[in-house]
Amino acid sequence: MTYCVAAVTKEGIVFASDSRTNGGVDQISVFGKMNVFESPGERMICMLSSGNLGTTQSVISLLHIRSKLDDGSINAAGILGLHHMYDVAVLVGQTLREVIARDGPSLAADGIDPGCTFILGGQIKGEPPRLFLVYPQGNFIEAMADTNYFQIGERKYGKPMIDRVVTFQTPLKDVAKCILVSFDSTMRSNLSVGLPIDLLGYAVDSLRVTHRRRYEEGDPYFATISGFWSTGLLRVFSEVPDVTWN
Amino acid sequence: MTYCVAAVTKEGIVFASDSRTNGGVDQISVFGKMNVFESPGERMICMLSSGNLGTTQSVISLLHIRSKLDDGSINAAGILGLHHMYDVAVLVGQTLREVIARDGPSLAADGIDPGCTFILGGQIKGEPPRLFLVYPQGNFIEAMADTNYFQIGERKYGKPMIDRVVTFQTPLKDVAKCILVSFDSTMRSNLSVGLPIDLLGYAVDSLRVTHRRRYEEGDPYFATISGFWSTGLLRVFSEVPDVTWN
Repeated sequence: MTYCVAAVTKEGIVFASDSRTNGGVDQISVFGKMNVFESPGERMICMLSSGNLGTTQSVISLLHIRSKLDDGSINAAGILGLHHMYDVAVLVGQTLREVIARDGPSLAADGIDPGCTFILGGQIKGEPPRLFLVYPQGNFIEAMADTNYFQIGERKYGKPMIDRVVTFQTPLKDVAKCILVSFDSTMRSNLSVGLPIDLLGYAVDSLRVTHRRRYEEGDPYFATISGFWSTGLLRVFSEVPDVTWN
Repeated sequence: MTYCVAAVTKEGIVFASDSRTNGGVDQISVFGKMNVFESPGERMICMLSSGNLGTTQSVISLLHIRSKLDDGSINAAGILGLHHMYDVAVLVGQTLREVIARDGPSLAADGIDPGCTFILGGQIKGEPPRLFLVYPQGNFIEAMADTNYFQIGERKYGKPMIDRVVTFQTPLKDVAKCILVSFDSTMRSNLSVGLPIDLLGYAVDSLRVTHRRRYEEGDPYFATISGFWSTGLLRVFSEVPDVTWN
């Protein structure tokens, strides 16, 4: 499985994804699920993916290949050329439909789901940062100030903490910390989500990747978060008044 | 949807269930999902249910009707007569199969899932307390010291906290508190789970319901738990060191 989250705030966007892919517990591999398309100073686009690995990789490959023309110049109709994040979301949806139209019938014949879901976000010069969720059918929704984050994959374990902390006004560093805490909860309760975690911070109007960090197995900061959080939760729990029975 | 939990420990068993049933957001009703079969001093059996309401109610009704013979005496082959919790689990599974055999085909014809899942636990004199999860197919598994709790319904939101706190050695009052905290997290993130919550505490060898409590909307203790927990979580979160970027 997968766990990916991204939240857009007044300060920018934080993206995070795990790297575990499994086709059963005896076939677990590490595949990054974070892909960045960047023209520093002009645009920064990040995609997180969940679902059929063949489909997600094909979509990403096609977006890359088609971002340039044969002469090496930028394709105005590609992910590095379009002027609006909205148009990029349409392009991702169309590319996804194209891959599913090509590979879906053969997979469906063997009962395999070809579907995948993307979180797509970033900023193109002249626009504010925008964040989209692209569904397996190729349509999409956009995050707004009221609901400013998307999760894909094993999202339920980590949702309660994000619901408590993350709003459109939350500082980017707190969003990043909260998302890592939500990964800690998810990984504790679900073996199919695992390190390494890719974390990307994008500051509004920087038009380039502002921060990037990979948390590998044994990362001291992630271990610190995990320890602080666990100890703190148990302390708070001990402070909650005991149940009074009738 | 539904959220039900039960955990067996060296001190006894705690059961909890929400009371929200929905057939779409415009058809939400309150139905208790906790049923108790008790012969004080001899046995205490509690069942929590999730899934098709018609099926769960039929199973419970049949167990009740068949617990006595026509002359009002206890049926030795019924839920109040069997000598082992294991046999009760078999009976629940068989009754579930019987109802699904009767109602399932008509429901399946309209694309409705007739299935339901039960958490079944308690103690019969001469045995230790036992806790089972009965699947829609009528088979079942039993909680052991290593994995001493079961959840059914919307279980993922509340799982991380239970995983942190509840072991076979945890005092019953802490188990009850932790389960209420897990309800608070679940209800925050999922509208389809809601108050009232039924909570039942069973102390080992008491052979009767030891504690029972219903938390209605606005219950002051539940509001206190919820407030303490929320404030405490945010305080711990603020103490976790900030993310260091590369």
